[in-house]
Amino acid sequence: MIILGIDPGTATTGYGVIKIPDDILSREFEYGIELIDYGNIFTPKDKPMPERLWMLHRQLSKIIEQYQPNQMAVEMLFFGANLKTAIMVGQARGIVLMSAARYTLPISEYTGLQVKLMVAGAGRADKEQVHQGVRKFLGGKNGKRKRLKVNWVGGHLDDATDALAIAICHVLKLVSK
Amino acid sequence: MIILGIDPGTATTGYGVIKIPDDILSREFEYGIELIDYGNIFTPKDKPMPERLWMLHRQLSKIIEQYQPNQMAVEMLFFGANLKTAIMVGQARGIVLMSAARYTLPISEYTGLQVKLMVAGAGRADKEQVHQGVRKFLGGKNGKRKRLKVNWVGGHLDDATDALAIAICHVLKLVSK
Repeated sequence: MIILGIDPGTATTGYGVIKIPDDILSREFEYGIELIDYGNIFTPKDKPMPERLWMLHRQLSKIIEQYQPNQMAVEMLFFGANLKTAIMVGQARGIVLMSAARYTLPISEYTGLQVKLMVAGAGRADKEQVHQGVRKFLGGKNGKRKRLKVNWVGGHLDDATDALAIAICHVLKLVSK
Repeated sequence: MIILGIDPGTATTGYGVIKIPDDILSREFEYGIELIDYGNIFTPKDKPMPERLWMLHRQLSKIIEQYQPNQMAVEMLFFGANLKTAIMVGQARGIVLMSAARYTLPISEYTGLQVKLMVAGAGRADKEQVHQGVRKFLGGKNGKRKRLKVNWVGGHLDDATDALAIAICHVLKLVSK
């Protein structure tokens, strides 16, 4: 089963693709998650917003078509922001949800708090602790697995790693049922 | 020139299609606007949000393909709401903006205040005054024109008429240049 995690944003939408065995429920869990891909969808800041949203949809569609995920996990709306930011995040989120519906991809939503609690083991975990959690879950026995680069230049690793954390969060939810 | 006005919302997105002569700048203005169509895009409340957003995109695309508008006018984000509403409106707005970009349709945005000022002549105009303004601008000499029904049952006239008001607002902006 392939899971696509998404951390939606207007300028940068992080994505993370992981794979779990279909029989994960009967396996020892910690080596069960395989990293397939992760990265960011960037939309140029000098373009008008409608065009950027269209780009986001097209690039996200490409990722969905490439990896054929079975499920999508998305970070839920956050409430710390002001109204203008909320509208902007809402716009990008709308595109992500719509793109999932286009491919009849079931969506699960998780709050930042849930991701921290489940992936890093603490609701007050900082970014580094979340990233450590991601590495822990993705570090398997298989040396041929794609490795998570933790010091990616440019600072955009954050969104992609957050997307992976959201995808992992969804796996934990699946196996906890 | 055909102008598509949109009043975006999650449950109901109003649309209004009007036509102005390409030589409107050299004409007497008040009889220049022709009503082509208006109505609402409804998405069922019992469906998941991603599906509803996808429906919104498909229905809006159908309207764009049918009327081939040259420009789109959209009501700008409003700030009276709470964060949750802002995210919801943002999602629907994201789909509207993206759909315009899909058809390379130029977008202009107007605040509710601008619409009231320009269409009803007063920033504090109530809905009825805005609707009167819409009727005034669309009431032409040509008896064969599509007539605006002002007492449409169900109360959903509001969104469609607001969409027409936004489209008219855009015409007024065009001719004021």
